[in-house]
Amino acid sequence: MDKEQESTQSQTDVLIIGAGPCGLMAAYWMARYGVNARIIDNRATKVFQGHADGLRSRTLELFDSMGFQHRVMQEGSISTEANIWVPGPEGKLVRQAQIDIFRVDESPFHNTCLNQGRIERFLLDSIREHSDLDVERSVIADSLEYDEKLSDDPDAYPITVKVRVLGEDDPNSSCGQETEVAGIEVNRSNLLPDDWADLAPRKKPQKTQVETIRAKYLIGCDGAHSWTRKQLNIPVEGSNTDHIWGVIDVKPVSDFPDVRRLSVVINAAGTILVIPRERGLVRFYVPVQTCEAGATDRFDRSKITSDLIRERVQAIFAPFTFNFKECSWWTVYQVGQRIATQSTKDNRIFLAGDAVHTHSPKMGLGMNMSMQDGFNVGWKVALAVAGTLKPKVLGTYALERHPLAEMLLDFDRHWSPIFTDQKPGADTKASDMALIAGKFEDFADGWKVFYPASSLVWKSEDNATFPFARHMIPGERVRPAKLRNQAGGGTIWTTRALESDGRFRILVLAGDIRNPTQQQRIETLTQGLAGQTGSSSSPFNRYMEIPGRFKSPVDVFTIHASPWKEVELFDFPEILRPFDPVEGWAYDKIWCDDACMFDRYCDGTAYEKWGVDRVLGALVVVRPDQYIGWVGELSDVDELTRYLDGILLKSTDEVDQVL
Amino acid sequence: MDKEQESTQSQTDVLIIGAGPCGLMAAYWMARYGVNARIIDNRATKVFQGHADGLRSRTLELFDSMGFQHRVMQEGSISTEANIWVPGPEGKLVRQAQIDIFRVDESPFHNTCLNQGRIERFLLDSIREHSDLDVERSVIADSLEYDEKLSDDPDAYPITVKVRVLGEDDPNSSCGQETEVAGIEVNRSNLLPDDWADLAPRKKPQKTQVETIRAKYLIGCDGAHSWTRKQLNIPVEGSNTDHIWGVIDVKPVSDFPDVRRLSVVINAAGTILVIPRERGLVRFYVPVQTCEAGATDRFDRSKITSDLIRERVQAIFAPFTFNFKECSWWTVYQVGQRIATQSTKDNRIFLAGDAVHTHSPKMGLGMNMSMQDGFNVGWKVALAVAGTLKPKVLGTYALERHPLAEMLLDFDRHWSPIFTDQKPGADTKASDMALIAGKFEDFADGWKVFYPASSLVWKSEDNATFPFARHMIPGERVRPAKLRNQAGGGTIWTTRALESDGRFRILVLAGDIRNPTQQQRIETLTQGLAGQTGSSSSPFNRYMEIPGRFKSPVDVFTIHASPWKEVELFDFPEILRPFDPVEGWAYDKIWCDDACMFDRYCDGTAYEKWGVDRVLGALVVVRPDQYIGWVGELSDVDELTRYLDGILLKSTDEVDQVL
Repeated sequence: MDKEQESTQSQTDVLIIGAGPCGLMAAYWMARYGVNARIIDNRATKVFQGHADGLRSRTLELFDSMGFQHRVMQEGSISTEANIWVPGPEGKLVRQAQIDIFRVDESPFHNTCLNQGRIERFLLDSIREHSDLDVERSVIADSLEYDEKLSDDPDAYPITVKVRVLGEDDPNSSCGQETEVAGIEVNRSNLLPDDWADLAPRKKPQKTQVETIRAKYLIGCDGAHSWTRKQLNIPVEGSNTDHIWGVIDVKPVSDFPDVRRLSVVINAAGTILVIPRERGLVRFYVPVQTCEAGATDRFDRSKITSDLIRERVQAIFAPFTFNFKECSWWTVYQVGQRIATQSTKDNRIFLAGDAVHTHSPKMGLGMNMSMQDGFNVGWKVALAVAGTLKPKVLGTYALERHPLAEMLLDFDRHWSPIFTDQKPGADTKASDMALIAGKFEDFADGWKVFYPASSLVWKSEDNATFPFARHMIPGERVRPAKLRNQAGGGTIWTTRALESDGRFRILVLAGDIRNPTQQQRIETLTQGLAGQTGSSSSPFNRYMEIPGRFKSPVDVFTIHASPWKEVELFDFPEILRPFDPVEGWAYDKIWCDDACMFDRYCDGTAYEKWGVDRVLGALVVVRPDQYIGWVGELSDVDELTRYLDGILLKSTDEVDQVL
Repeated sequence: MDKEQESTQSQTDVLIIGAGPCGLMAAYWMARYGVNARIIDNRATKVFQGHADGLRSRTLELFDSMGFQHRVMQEGSISTEANIWVPGPEGKLVRQAQIDIFRVDESPFHNTCLNQGRIERFLLDSIREHSDLDVERSVIADSLEYDEKLSDDPDAYPITVKVRVLGEDDPNSSCGQETEVAGIEVNRSNLLPDDWADLAPRKKPQKTQVETIRAKYLIGCDGAHSWTRKQLNIPVEGSNTDHIWGVIDVKPVSDFPDVRRLSVVINAAGTILVIPRERGLVRFYVPVQTCEAGATDRFDRSKITSDLIRERVQAIFAPFTFNFKECSWWTVYQVGQRIATQSTKDNRIFLAGDAVHTHSPKMGLGMNMSMQDGFNVGWKVALAVAGTLKPKVLGTYALERHPLAEMLLDFDRHWSPIFTDQKPGADTKASDMALIAGKFEDFADGWKVFYPASSLVWKSEDNATFPFARHMIPGERVRPAKLRNQAGGGTIWTTRALESDGRFRILVLAGDIRNPTQQQRIETLTQGLAGQTGSSSSPFNRYMEIPGRFKSPVDVFTIHASPWKEVELFDFPEILRPFDPVEGWAYDKIWCDDACMFDRYCDGTAYEKWGVDRVLGALVVVRPDQYIGWVGELSDVDELTRYLDGILLKSTDEVDQVL
């Protein structure tokens, strides 16, 4: 092999194909765990305008755990009511119903719209904050080889991907460069300053280069037409009817009263979804036509223009006026309801996001589901590569996410006809909508994910709730609550406090530590956590480290239910506020569920939300992705250790000790 | 004049000397108004660590109006209680008192600590968002000439400043470059990524260059040893005793229970102020010694080290432990309580911030007062340069801010001895503290600024409150309230809604528009605002534009008190939601004071906070800096116009019309 060929060979632990929101969520974990990874994208620049825009509350909770939710709240537009407009008795459109946002205390965050370009910005900034990982753009994957024989060896590189790094000489070199979107120029004047540097594509090599990348793991986040999926010959199944949608982001000039409110307008001429957005923009979804999938001439895209979409909206809005002078983005979507039959190959290659499931974009679920896919697969692959997670746990990705993809399609099949069917009774539609919204609300908002039992999720035998923590359900999220820091007095949402830093977290719900019997229980717990009782060593030094990041993949986080002013930090045993020679005692690990006069959301109701007794407390393990893995009583340290033993590799010290 | 000399001559409308928080606040307005301005600083880089850190709630309200309060909230540390520790009966330190934050509903924001480097970051980002104005660093001002004869000509350039732009050849070229602060290296590992680009100083010219800058206005924000002040021979008066303070930002290793809470520790060995900060840091202020000001050898600074400060804290904390391994910044402050006798020369040259007032840093007031100085002078100078504000209004800067500088020193004189006097009775100190805190609380938090009557502030004849808007006091701020947008349903604090975009704003407190009599009043108001009644034209097209920014320097903002669901946007007259051919109707101009189920802070109490009748409403003018200028009834459009006539220059059209 001569030197020139050698220079185009490389190895990486993880290769991510596709740097949209799904791929960036996976890359976030590579950055957090300090994993040797690469992320490539065939486009020349990030997305700037338009594309996906709906953010569900669960996604926002995850963003909070990643540290940039405040940026979304500052820029995004919250939708609080759904308004249904139908022809009234005199034929003119009237507001038939105004459906309030439901269960407002279920999450601190509400449905928010903000364009995908900003989400990519926040993810890129977060990745940069934690590592040197950078998206490689204008890189095209050409071939994929996979050596099945190596699938069981975690140290092997069974994957070989040949890529082309486009140079200035390639005619496609500027493809996917968003300097102009559908005839609208993207420039400084319509972007925020922190996106300006990305406007110009990176410096490319003079000549196109070919590189052969060998990888331990591959994550394909390359969209509905996934190249990765096609290389693996994984079929997609589902509806063979494609619905064609016009979508347009404009500053509306309209006398429709709810143009700044989430609305569905159902008229004889058709149905429109109205979605208010950031910076005065409003998105309009309009069904344009239906055609058979797979037909060679699916539809003549060139016939659909922004003017045609404008006219469709005008027809449906009539007699209200509609027009615009400023359009920031528009496109035509042709999306069927389809699902890949598999989302992994031997748990070495994974598909995530639109590569697995495609559906209509109207419920603002696509980007959310995709990002949550990337989030789920990302931490598992990264922690496995770090040598901390048992590789068999990787099987939980498909187990957890694939059924949700099916549920998403089911939801979409119920929901979509409301927008696409021709001229049904308007009344029926509104009531249908409420029915479907009610049925799917937990799912749509991401409050329930229904992750099944696995090594990562220990359910009770009959799937019943645990009496000592009735609303802490393994496989679901921790219901958000606002807590008060014992040491400093500041308040924080659990979503931010339980930072997505890569560690499992033992939540010690310590109850009321003023109670002498409870003090005794805490003492016993302390001995258990220190490895002084039972047959096991301490869960805090029993497992492999996360190299370069954390000495232990298990962290502790205590929330007590005594009044804030009646206890002190040093009333708690040191193992709950561990000492570090540089950081001092861990002031950020003891929290209090008490009302706080200066913060109305810190109202001392966390224990009630979680169904936990305020004296007796409980013990919970939260996974790195914020989902509940295990629930027990304060005395159940042995079972907790068995749970972690099933997931994490024991440290070398520990193995020595056992031998 | 040959070509080379020519190249070193230049003109600018406004020259700002000093790019600390005060200078950047002034520069913010130059950016917002699009004024031709320059800002120079003798340091090679911005501040990164340490320096000032206390942010009072009023400052945070201003940040909200500037658009970056959310970044402070994400990073800063809120201090909610003041804890007083004194020796108990057995001599050991005990917590004598825990003083809660008072009047929590007075502001959405609470005292927050975050280092000056971050504040500079947010200000620099904000300036960049609105203009190409950039700080010119490593630029030294050498001489100042001022031609008094030109003082009355707003178009003249009476100021000539010669500056040296340091080149690589100058030995001082890297002075003030914060790559190392007091022996602590500043690098990527202890900075957030958005500060990294500023770590390296800008590219300097090869050779030092001399430039002569002629300016219409000069703002000296160049600190306690202000070069500008010295050039003007403006004397400083005040205490001739300098107190010397050690200040240290560390990660404390300490078993003192309140090390993460704002605390004053008063021991026989001395007094310490403990201020929790961002990222696990805590600041400690320790008095070190007192000396006479003006003595040539004021004190031997080299004798004071971080170890000496560490030992002082250890002595006062005993028997609690104190130590640290990580120190991000430390310094020795030598500050007397002094005030410049003037803060302007002919209203062409202004002094702001520490250039006017120096005092002890312990109450976290210095940076706040300085930034508010810069904010006050900035908008006035910029709007005068824009040709919109009558130049005589510039006299209100000294009128408004100088008395506050005096009050600040008065406050400091009361407060400072508590920290510096030797061994008084500890009990006395704690009660003193509560007394002084009570007396100055409105002042310290910035909730009252006591701006006197002027062309900008129309008080009632006997300084009484207006019965129709009892808590809307001219010269004070609008008490913050959370409102609901009529068009979209989203909620917002008035502090953010009343954006500091440079315009005067007419607040139409429309009352309950369901009431037929009130509808009649609104109709009359509408005619008045449209210039269809009385002797005046519409205040919206009566005045000079803000060139390149706004066609009118007067904006409108309506807040009604009807239930949100019972009225519609289009129920309001068009002049309150003006039409724009691109933006459509102004959806962001009609707001509602109603409770909102998804936001606990949007509780429908704005009218009560402002002392305004929920049916009858009121009319208020808010200045560009968010202070109340004028208060009246809905029928008082004529008086409102007279108020604006006293401040703003009439547009050319208007002059024609009058002629």
